[in-house]
Amino acid sequence: MTPDTPVQILDAYATAVYARDVDALLALYHPDVTVYDMWESWLYDGRDAWRGMVEGWFGSLGDGRVEVTFDNVRSTATPELALVHAFVTYTGQSASGERLRAMNNRVSMTLVPEGDRWLIQHEHSSAPAQFETGKVSLQRPV
Amino acid sequence: MTPDTPVQILDAYATAVYARDVDALLALYHPDVTVYDMWESWLYDGRDAWRGMVEGWFGSLGDGRVEVTFDNVRSTATPELALVHAFVTYTGQSASGERLRAMNNRVSMTLVPEGDRWLIQHEHSSAPAQFETGKVSLQRPV
Repeated sequence: MTPDTPVQILDAYATAVYARDVDALLALYHPDVTVYDMWESWLYDGRDAWRGMVEGWFGSLGDGRVEVTFDNVRSTATPELALVHAFVTYTGQSASGERLRAMNNRVSMTLVPEGDRWLIQHEHSSAPAQFETGKVSLQRPV
Repeated sequence: MTPDTPVQILDAYATAVYARDVDALLALYHPDVTVYDMWESWLYDGRDAWRGMVEGWFGSLGDGRVEVTFDNVRSTATPELALVHAFVTYTGQSASGERLRAMNNRVSMTLVPEGDRWLIQHEHSSAPAQFETGKVSLQRPV
């Protein structure tokens, strides 16, 4: 079977996050995934470790939702490994759909084929830090 | 020709940085490389853009040197694409070899084969940010 194109992982990611569906999101990851997440932890080593972060994140949203959009998407697909990277916007919405706040970051995903789809083998997300303050910039200049 | 193993790019990176050799470091990158660097900029798009950062960095060192070491290295090599990621320690040294300071981050490199070696097609470096302060952690807990 020919895998989906790698960039489809981004749509699947956004759909799972909007639905706050832990299992749908984790189904996009390889069991041995390594994640360098932008917040708090140096490494999530394996999907089970990553599950804890996802459960905490979705649990913290209450009735709110997070809309995820991507731009400046670049991808490279080869038969055995693929790379997708992009700028990301996370927009928080209240239960009634009101837009609350938005945050930017950057994500790089390395994918491996598994049957007819791709799974995330490694994910790295971050926002650039300012030299002077050591703080990350969460609003990307247009 | 069989390319070097992908992890050799880390030794070549460390050697070029220690030598403050701009051209040796840039020779490790594909002309169309994209870099999500941990400091200041959202994207360096292409090797020429990245050259400016490298020149500024090495120029700022004066007679000092930076020793780069890697740990927790993981890699995946396929014929057409490879992934290497690791924790990094940058140790500043004075001109006389005195250890001045050390900083940790994380790097993910995606590599493409070119003749008998690998070139960096995409690099993403960061350190995790703290929720409370928004500041990046530059010292990884042991």
